[in-house]
Order: sequence, then C-alpha cells, then structure tokens
Amino acid sequence: MGPGPSDVPSRVLEALARPTIGHLDPVFLQALDETQAMLREVFGTANALTLPMSATGSAGMETCFVNLLEPGDHALICRHGVFGGRMAEVARRCGAEVTLVDAPWGQAIDPDDVAKAAKSRAFKVLAIVHAETSTGVLQDLSPFRAIADSCGALLLVDTVTSLAGVPVDVDRMGIDAVYSGTQKCLSCPPGLSPVSFSERARHVLSTRDTPVQSWYLDLNLIGQYFGGERVYHHTAPVNMIFALHEALRLVLEEGLTARYARHRQQAEALRQGLEALGLELPVAPTDRLPPLTLVRIPDGVDDRAVRAKLLADHGLEIGGGLGDFKGKAWRIGLMGASATPRHVELCLGALREALR
Amino acid sequence: MGPGPSDVPSRVLEALARPTIGHLDPVFLQALDETQAMLREVFGTANALTLPMSATGSAGMETCFVNLLEPGDHALICRHGVFGGRMAEVARRCGAEVTLVDAPWGQAIDPDDVAKAAKSRAFKVLAIVHAETSTGVLQDLSPFRAIADSCGALLLVDTVTSLAGVPVDVDRMGIDAVYSGTQKCLSCPPGLSPVSFSERARHVLSTRDTPVQSWYLDLNLIGQYFGGERVYHHTAPVNMIFALHEALRLVLEEGLTARYARHRQQAEALRQGLEALGLELPVAPTDRLPPLTLVRIPDGVDDRAVRAKLLADHGLEIGGGLGDFKGKAWRIGLMGASATPRHVELCLGALREALR
Repeated sequence: MGPGPSDVPSRVLEALARPTIGHLDPVFLQALDETQAMLREVFGTANALTLPMSATGSAGMETCFVNLLEPGDHALICRHGVFGGRMAEVARRCGAEVTLVDAPWGQAIDPDDVAKAAKSRAFKVLAIVHAETSTGVLQDLSPFRAIADSCGALLLVDTVTSLAGVPVDVDRMGIDAVYSGTQKCLSCPPGLSPVSFSERARHVLSTRDTPVQSWYLDLNLIGQYFGGERVYHHTAPVNMIFALHEALRLVLEEGLTARYARHRQQAEALRQGLEALGLELPVAPTDRLPPLTLVRIPDGVDDRAVRAKLLADHGLEIGGGLGDFKGKAWRIGLMGASATPRHVELCLGALREALR
Repeated sequence: MGPGPSDVPSRVLEALARPTIGHLDPVFLQALDETQAMLREVFGTANALTLPMSATGSAGMETCFVNLLEPGDHALICRHGVFGGRMAEVARRCGAEVTLVDAPWGQAIDPDDVAKAAKSRAFKVLAIVHAETSTGVLQDLSPFRAIADSCGALLLVDTVTSLAGVPVDVDRMGIDAVYSGTQKCLSCPPGLSPVSFSERARHVLSTRDTPVQSWYLDLNLIGQYFGGERVYHHTAPVNMIFALHEALRLVLEEGLTARYARHRQQAEALRQGLEALGLELPVAPTDRLPPLTLVRIPDGVDDRAVRAKLLADHGLEIGGGLGDFKGKAWRIGLMGASATPRHVELCLGALREALR
C-alpha cells in the first residue's frame, strides 16, 4: 500500500508465468494486438500509436520527451512534485530550453499561471503531471488543451498513477502524448510503460530534423514492429506483455466506471478513518488523488520506526515522503487490486496500533 | 529454438510469479544484492558496478554507449552483423564520430584490421560483438584489450548471446563495459539487461563534461540505488528480478564449466545432424557460436513455409535470417535450458520431415 507496486491479482501472476514464447509467434502477436486495443480503451483514445514500452514508467516519460523534442526546442513544464521536476530534467537532456511553472508541493498547478507563461513565447511541448505520485495531488486537465493551443504546443501528460484508477480521457482532453506505468492502478508488476501518441504528435515525430537521441525508445522504429509490419527492433518482454494483457482484461471486466467509483469510495473511507485517528491530510479535499493519499506524520513520531513496524507486524508497506515531504509525510496507496475495504481496514488498524 | 527467447525452466517461471512486493522491501533488496553477486560470477568480474538494467538487451547496448560517449568523441566499432551495425547507430545518436571495421557477414572480425584502424587516431571506445546473434559467429576477444590500449580506448563488448553459454571472462579479457540479455543462455524471460562497468569505465562516467543524454539509463543515478544508498530512481521490475535471481541460481548450480561444455556438446550434435541432412553451415568451424547455429536454406526451399510448418506440426520455432542472410539462412538456437539432446533430436527430426 505504498505508491506502487500495488497488489497483483493471481490471474495476472499466472499469465506472467505462462511459458515464454517467441516475440514473433502468432500467439504472442495476437496478445500484443489485444493489449494495444485494450490500452486504447483504458486511455480513452483512438490513437493508432498506443503501445507498452519495454521498460518502466520513467522510460515512458523519456519516450515522450525524446521523441518530441529536438535540441533548441522550448518546453513549458509544470512542476508541483518530483515528477514534474524529473520531466524538466529529461527535457533538458534532450537539449530543450525549459520554462517552469511551479506550484507548492501538495497543491495543484494553477492554470492561470500556465496561461500567463504560455503568452511569453511559442513552445513545442506543454507538459503536466495528472497524478503527482510524490504528493497525492490530482490535476484537473481540462484547461490545458486550450493553453497548449495558445502557444502552439503539444500537450504531454504523465498518467502513471491515474491510468485505470481515475478517468484519463486522452482524446476528450486533447492530450497529444501520454505515458503510464503498469504497477499502479493497472495492478500488474512493474516493467512496462504504456504510451500513446496522437496523430499530431506522430506528425511531429515523423518530420523531425534530427534522429531521436535514444535508439531504444525511438517510436519511428518501434512503430514498425507494433504497426503490422513486425520489423524486428528489440525482443519484446513476452511474459510481461502476457501479464499486462491479463491485467487489462480484469480492468475491462470490472468496467472503467465501476473501477473509478471503487477507487473514490475506498479513498474516501481511508481518509475518514485517518482523520478519525487524528491524522492530518495536507492536500486540499478538491485536489486529492483517490489512488494515493498523503498523510502528515504527527510531531514526535519516528517515520522509519513506524514503517518498519507496519512491515514487520502486518506485512504492510506504506510509502515514505519524497522531496519537500521527506520525513514529514507518508503516502498510502489504494491502487487497482489494493483499493478494497480489506486494505483500508488493514491499514487503519495497523496505523492505530503503531501510533498508540 | 530461435535466436531467443530460449525455453524458461519452471523454477524460473515460478519465481517470476511470486507476489509482487515493493522495490524497497528488505526481502527484495536482498534478492537484488544476490542477483548482482551472481551476475559478477557469471560475467567473470569483480566490478562493483554490475547490475541488471530495467529493459531488454538493446537497452543494455544503449546504456554502455550513452554513459561512456559524449558529443564529438570517437568510437571504433567492429561490424560483422546486425548488432555491430546497431552499435554504430547508437554511438552516432550519442553524437560520436564512428570509425567502422567490417568483416563479411558470417565471418569473424580480423584483429589485424582493427589494429590498423586503431593506429589512425585515439578513440574513446573500441566496441565489438562477442557473439553475433545475426550470424552465429563467435569472436575471440583475446587480442582486443591490447588493441584498445594502443588507441587509448575503453573496450566495450556485446555478450547478449554468449553470457552463461560461452565463457565471457570480463576481467581476464580486460573488458571495460559489457552488456547482455536475459532471454538467451540465461534462460530467463526477456526484459532485463545485465551490464558491468570496470573501474576505468566508472571513472570516465564520473568525469563526463555533459550529463548522460538518457536519464533512464544514467548509471550515475542508477548506481545510487544499487550501490547501497537505495536512492529512488525508478521502480525496479521486481518480478523480473526474482526470475533472473532464480535463473542465475540454476546457472551456478549447474556450474559454469559444465554449462559451457553442455552448450558445446549439444551444438556439435546439432551440427553433425544438420550436415547429415545435407544442410550447409556457412560459418567456418573455428568461428561457430555454440548457442546459435546458422544453416543455409537449400535452393528451392520456401523459408516461411518450412518455419510455419515447424511451428504448426511440432510447436518448434527457429529463427529466420537477418540482413545479408534474410531469406537465405535459418538460425537455430541451443541456449540455456534449450541446449539439450531432446531439443537437438526434436529439431533434426522436424527439419527432416519438413524438408522431405
């Protein structure tokens, strides 16, 4: 019950352990096609270029930036936690000039601040984190397509901790490039990063002046394997794809609407229980991210000792704070298969005992 | 029985399907430490910086180049198949100037050619493929440390298809940077790339003028997670690490010497059987790679039809040709758990029937 990995259902573990077959085997290629189709449904997109990158979520971030940015490009990046800061770092390593819009840790980005920064010049990319895993803040994405248009930018969004737990609506929000991870609300082991690129983003990609600086993450090349021609690029992580395939089937069997409601309900129950324990939730109620709740560590409580006790006595992991919240807050995840009443009760009971 | 993935033993699949736990859980961190220790043993190295990268073998290649090369550096790259060519492409994307030494596909690189090229100028890196997966050629590495020294270069070696099937001897060969994959002679599913850097390579890495262009593959950052401080970089692919841990245990239980002998013996049996069927092996006997055998497709035989028949009638996959050998040769793998008499008999029997 940390910030991920979440609990993985046995059906997904069983799929993971299927005999390894070749990455060009027709049985595998069918699973791959179905995985792409299901990812489109969960992302809420018709984008053809929707696929799982063969690495973890952070590589999904890098995939979006390296494919869209060239040296000298300008990127407008919103930063209200670790992952916005990481976006800026990755964009700079692509040779881009970065303009930052900040919000205090634990708060959402103010769209007016972004709109103001977007007036300063044209940008190639406007990037924002939908669900800040370092703070438990959910960002309303609806104002950002218009802001991106105002400065000629592609809209790039991090949905690592929102996909399959909170509506993402890639097409409805006008998102051009999006990435996620498998180990959060999809409840699949870590190791893959689903990404999706709009037609506009694909056009930018196919008309670059310079090659994508990463060969491994070059979607011009990878698209030739996923796109139907099956041109060899790298050996697909076959077993991880089987696991993601099964995880997506579980998501769609439950139904997206029901799944989002479950995440909201369990998060609400957790928050009520935490407040009943006298614990403080630093994020404003309107900005709270259902899959991840930030809890202030009470004065005089030993962060590491409590977390070690939860793990030893209850087999329960919760996350420590990052950045501004290091040593000051815990992060409690209710993601995918971990967003159940049983998890909420376990966590509240264990915390009650540990804080006694 | 293609060029990988090889068959994965049930013990490894069971480890893969262990419940997913956190990437900072002490149980996982112990498995990670043990994985690094076992990788050192299999690589034949004492290098502290020895770890599995969280992506497939091609990302291991990119890891070695992006960490060691900076824009304007010169790289001397040997090319006698797909993977030497890919090295050149990756090095160029790092902004390096590449000097190529070629050998015909199906032959080893002539060290004298490399020594001659090394006289032309200083190089930052000399790179060569130990086991060319596209041709089934095994390269004798012993002359290359001296050649690298003659031009001031780090020695960078691709061992994707040799590690755990053929002696690699990183320290004895004076290799500075090496990468491999999990899905070949380690008989683990694809998804991780073991790498190892010598102290000399680490020094080059830590004294770079520019940041590593890939954030995801930056060993300066990743080393802080693996090195003991456990600084968060990305979420480690927990289940894949469990699988690699078990695969390495199997390798060391068998013993490296016995494992190499098994690969040689089964390859010899396969080759004798193929020649008895009247098939031609294009690679010279001295250059043959035990884990992968190249077979010329006889005139008049339909490549795809035969491979489809093997898969349909026998559940047997063999590899098609790449590059110069596309449509002209098959690649038959005997890697790790797939290097057994049963596999050799299955393959020979199936081919006999399909070619009748």
